[in-house]
Amino acid sequence: MNVQTPIANTIPTGERPGSRKVYAPGVLFPCLRVPFREVAVHPSAGEPPVTLYDPSGPYTDPHATIDIDKGLERPREAWVLARGDVEAVEARAVKPEDNGGAKGKYLAPEFKSDRRPLRAKVGAHVTQLEYARAGVITAEMEYVAIRENLRRDALAETVRDGEDFGASIPDHVTPEFVRDEVARGRAIIPANINHGELEPMAIGRNFLVKINANIGNSAVLSQVADEVDKMVWAIRWGGDTIMDLSTGRNIHNIREWIIRNCPTPLGTVPIYQALEKVNGVAEDLTWEVFRDTLIEQAEQGVDYFTIHAGVRLAYIPLTAKRVTGIVSRGGSIMAKWCLAHHQENFLYEHFEDICEIMRAYDVSFSLGDGLRPGSTADANDAAQFAELETLGELTQIAWAHGVQVMIEGPGHVPMHKIKANMDKQLKVCGEAPFYTLGPLVTDVAPGYDHITSAIGAAMIGWFGTAMLCYVTPKEHLGLPDREDVKQGVIAYKIAAHAADLAKGHPGARDWDDALSRARFEFRWEDQFNLGLDPETAREFHDETMPAEAHKTAHFCSMCGPKFCSMKISHEIRDSAEAQNDVAIVAGMAEMAEKFRDGGGEIYVETKG
Amino acid sequence: MNVQTPIANTIPTGERPGSRKVYAPGVLFPCLRVPFREVAVHPSAGEPPVTLYDPSGPYTDPHATIDIDKGLERPREAWVLARGDVEAVEARAVKPEDNGGAKGKYLAPEFKSDRRPLRAKVGAHVTQLEYARAGVITAEMEYVAIRENLRRDALAETVRDGEDFGASIPDHVTPEFVRDEVARGRAIIPANINHGELEPMAIGRNFLVKINANIGNSAVLSQVADEVDKMVWAIRWGGDTIMDLSTGRNIHNIREWIIRNCPTPLGTVPIYQALEKVNGVAEDLTWEVFRDTLIEQAEQGVDYFTIHAGVRLAYIPLTAKRVTGIVSRGGSIMAKWCLAHHQENFLYEHFEDICEIMRAYDVSFSLGDGLRPGSTADANDAAQFAELETLGELTQIAWAHGVQVMIEGPGHVPMHKIKANMDKQLKVCGEAPFYTLGPLVTDVAPGYDHITSAIGAAMIGWFGTAMLCYVTPKEHLGLPDREDVKQGVIAYKIAAHAADLAKGHPGARDWDDALSRARFEFRWEDQFNLGLDPETAREFHDETMPAEAHKTAHFCSMCGPKFCSMKISHEIRDSAEAQNDVAIVAGMAEMAEKFRDGGGEIYVETKG
Repeated sequence: MNVQTPIANTIPTGERPGSRKVYAPGVLFPCLRVPFREVAVHPSAGEPPVTLYDPSGPYTDPHATIDIDKGLERPREAWVLARGDVEAVEARAVKPEDNGGAKGKYLAPEFKSDRRPLRAKVGAHVTQLEYARAGVITAEMEYVAIRENLRRDALAETVRDGEDFGASIPDHVTPEFVRDEVARGRAIIPANINHGELEPMAIGRNFLVKINANIGNSAVLSQVADEVDKMVWAIRWGGDTIMDLSTGRNIHNIREWIIRNCPTPLGTVPIYQALEKVNGVAEDLTWEVFRDTLIEQAEQGVDYFTIHAGVRLAYIPLTAKRVTGIVSRGGSIMAKWCLAHHQENFLYEHFEDICEIMRAYDVSFSLGDGLRPGSTADANDAAQFAELETLGELTQIAWAHGVQVMIEGPGHVPMHKIKANMDKQLKVCGEAPFYTLGPLVTDVAPGYDHITSAIGAAMIGWFGTAMLCYVTPKEHLGLPDREDVKQGVIAYKIAAHAADLAKGHPGARDWDDALSRARFEFRWEDQFNLGLDPETAREFHDETMPAEAHKTAHFCSMCGPKFCSMKISHEIRDSAEAQNDVAIVAGMAEMAEKFRDGGGEIYVETKG
Repeated sequence: MNVQTPIANTIPTGERPGSRKVYAPGVLFPCLRVPFREVAVHPSAGEPPVTLYDPSGPYTDPHATIDIDKGLERPREAWVLARGDVEAVEARAVKPEDNGGAKGKYLAPEFKSDRRPLRAKVGAHVTQLEYARAGVITAEMEYVAIRENLRRDALAETVRDGEDFGASIPDHVTPEFVRDEVARGRAIIPANINHGELEPMAIGRNFLVKINANIGNSAVLSQVADEVDKMVWAIRWGGDTIMDLSTGRNIHNIREWIIRNCPTPLGTVPIYQALEKVNGVAEDLTWEVFRDTLIEQAEQGVDYFTIHAGVRLAYIPLTAKRVTGIVSRGGSIMAKWCLAHHQENFLYEHFEDICEIMRAYDVSFSLGDGLRPGSTADANDAAQFAELETLGELTQIAWAHGVQVMIEGPGHVPMHKIKANMDKQLKVCGEAPFYTLGPLVTDVAPGYDHITSAIGAAMIGWFGTAMLCYVTPKEHLGLPDREDVKQGVIAYKIAAHAADLAKGHPGARDWDDALSRARFEFRWEDQFNLGLDPETAREFHDETMPAEAHKTAHFCSMCGPKFCSMKISHEIRDSAEAQNDVAIVAGMAEMAEKFRDGGGEIYVETKG
């Protein structure tokens, strides 16, 4: 099995339509090159280009050389090494069970590299949380600050319009603000010291809402090439982090290919691989196998681990009368282990040991919600909230060990029960970032759960959730393919941006307003290019009006030329201008109030 | 141009997968046959079938003979005639301008019929509102009551779980409740006395949330066949009402074909046709042309008219500094007329005349929001809210004339500004039903506005909006085709049902719970059939697991067999049962609290 060729052939590269990849340098760290996507608008608009957040990595840089076999460049390694507190160690030897015993033609090829893993020196404090607490602004923090500002002028007047439910979103993000948020535990920068390819990003309530895209093969399907391709595809459309949820064979080798080519944080659920190592028999899981898996993955550079340490033995009976029982894979695995052994969850028992391993590599916790509801009927029940309280307790322990933490949330929740989730999470988890799967607001639409869940995701994002885990149209039905990944990412970009708008995030409106002006001025190309998916917008338009001349037409096929309200709106303005009436042209809005009470009276009289 | 053949060939008929068309009779009116879609579940579930609301009409009845050339049967005509207060009149003669002057092969064929239009006898009060006020329960009201109850037992215990923001949703809908809601103006039953094909339905805050699907040709595209097909297609997927927004030639003839084959209420925007009659020159519109158009359409059987009487002259300047000006077609037409003539909107001036025409046929008002925001930047501005206040004033006038009223709402509104729309509408419009377009919660996703708007629609539906006007993926880009119509309807069925769930509508949960149980029990066919789109769900599942045996498999390709949480949940339950432990099997949930505080203690001890 030779995977190199198919990978290289399918990786989508090049700039997005109408977009240019640009970089901003750091001030504290001049070597930083913080990426943005700049969308130019037609000169007739007389407007500056629009700067958008860009998690797509070097794949959209026309000057970057993409060689999947070599992996991305590793600029961040120098930042890590410059801090002088890590050391290269002998890598844990890859064992056959790391790849599920795959052999011969069934074994995915190894990623060739002479990289030696880094680990904190004994006694050193290398996590972003520990630096932040020590008052140190890292390169990662400045990178994040620049990134979050979207090149807005620090001194520009900021119009704030939103309801942020008690968040503390600044007009301008400074590196010091990032440090402070990380120090408080209100934000994390998932950044394993072994992930030199990483372009750092922050997950926190006071930053832009982020989205995660899941990829990963299963025992049923998928190849190495497909997964690397899906990762690049997901970040091309806007995925901020990637979770590799692979569960079949070749997990180790596939993950190495992904990380070495991944510019976003990569998360995993280590229990999945641990279970493969014990041939899928949950009862056979041991702390030793799990511990070894954590080290294996930490050395590879995984940035955050989902750990289901909150699925305590005593909570499992709380799920007995649920409509859909336990629906988290990790949660059900741990529940099975607990019941088989009649023992407390070993992840809970060994939580401090886990902290110490993760601390040495700066792997962040994503505390898993193993008892999340899998149906609206089970939302906000005793099992779910009991676990959430335990996650709050574990957050304090992780923080005491200097480890960054975010908290996973549901799931399936009807609209009226969403806010209670956010409120309780804020209360019991000390404002650690919330990271939710949807939630889906109804169960009746298999095949459309990217939509049922985008509704809940937009709402919980508004209420304060820091990162939204996407759901694809294939949810509940099968493994997502490339198109499903795109549909999921776009639905979630919509949810995240809608949340930013509603929170009154500074600069969020600029994007909408630029697109709306393009729409009103019939700058069709600008409208397409500023949209989340220029290709699809153009294709939809061109289905009925394909001619190049139609790209400047003052109507579309939806209403036709005689009924285009925007065209008529322009005629109204033009007509007013033709009358050369100062009251209309310059002061319509100001004079409106005066005339408004005038009832049927004629509101202007021509002067000319 | 022979349109009959293509229409007959493409009309989708037959029952939905796994569904059976069933009817319930009336009690007050035993002749009623109120339709439902009954979805059977696998016998292993030991559950009754699930009854769903069914607006799809006779097209999904295998016993119905569908002949588009003859139109649907007209059972409702007998109910209307039985009331003895209407008379058949000589139809207004069709004029060439009714079809935009189309001639010869460009003229769509006439729908052949010897039907004579009905009109209220002089002095008779024939609207549902007038009957309701007089204390009369009509057949339409009983029909609606039966329909809303979804065959739930009137005496069954109702579990209420929701936040209804002050709505008054009863456990069981009686005909008297419907009468009272209509009498108060809190609900409407759009039901032109000339629409004998109609299966009545209610639009009101205390009933199930409804959705509207827009169809209609434009000057650029479309044929008769396509529009009838789109109508049937839209109601097949769940559209509760249809608006024919045609703007090209042949408007009259196309509309006749649609109405004669349409079992749901049909709405129009008469100003569109009036404008065609004056060759698209807004300035040339007159009250006489408009009046003539109202009568033309009322005689055909249109159930509700969008009338932009709230676009007052004095409000137009309020739009001058908007990012996207006026985006309602009707609103912009009227604004242009007002400015050209420097006169008050003639729809406002003639509002009482309009009421008297609509009253004679029981056409309901859909008071148009001609100044709705077309971008999130313009949401909730002075122009929008000034018009809304006028719509409140007009509501009182319409009610004084005995005419039913609903109110149209926005548009583009960021999440944090949605509730203010609902609150203000309730306050100024006397609880007349609200009917909103979305709202879209961000402007940045052309090509995906069914999603941006489903988010806002779900929220405003929860807050109290009675009907949600769908938005298709083609919004802002072009005329929707068949697939777009389906995507729009499904996104809105999701939004409407999510709203019903959150409001705590009795019975709304039953559907979700039945599907979730099917999901948990690996009844794949039940899961597909209970979903909004069984065909797509099945197709997605079968992409990776096509074998028939997989329809009972205890996993899917998403996670594979070893990682299926639901499978593991069952193993956990089975394992508990094998241990024959009463505490686990029968009383797990009850005992949970006791063990919950027990920390790491083993929560059960085997007794055997």
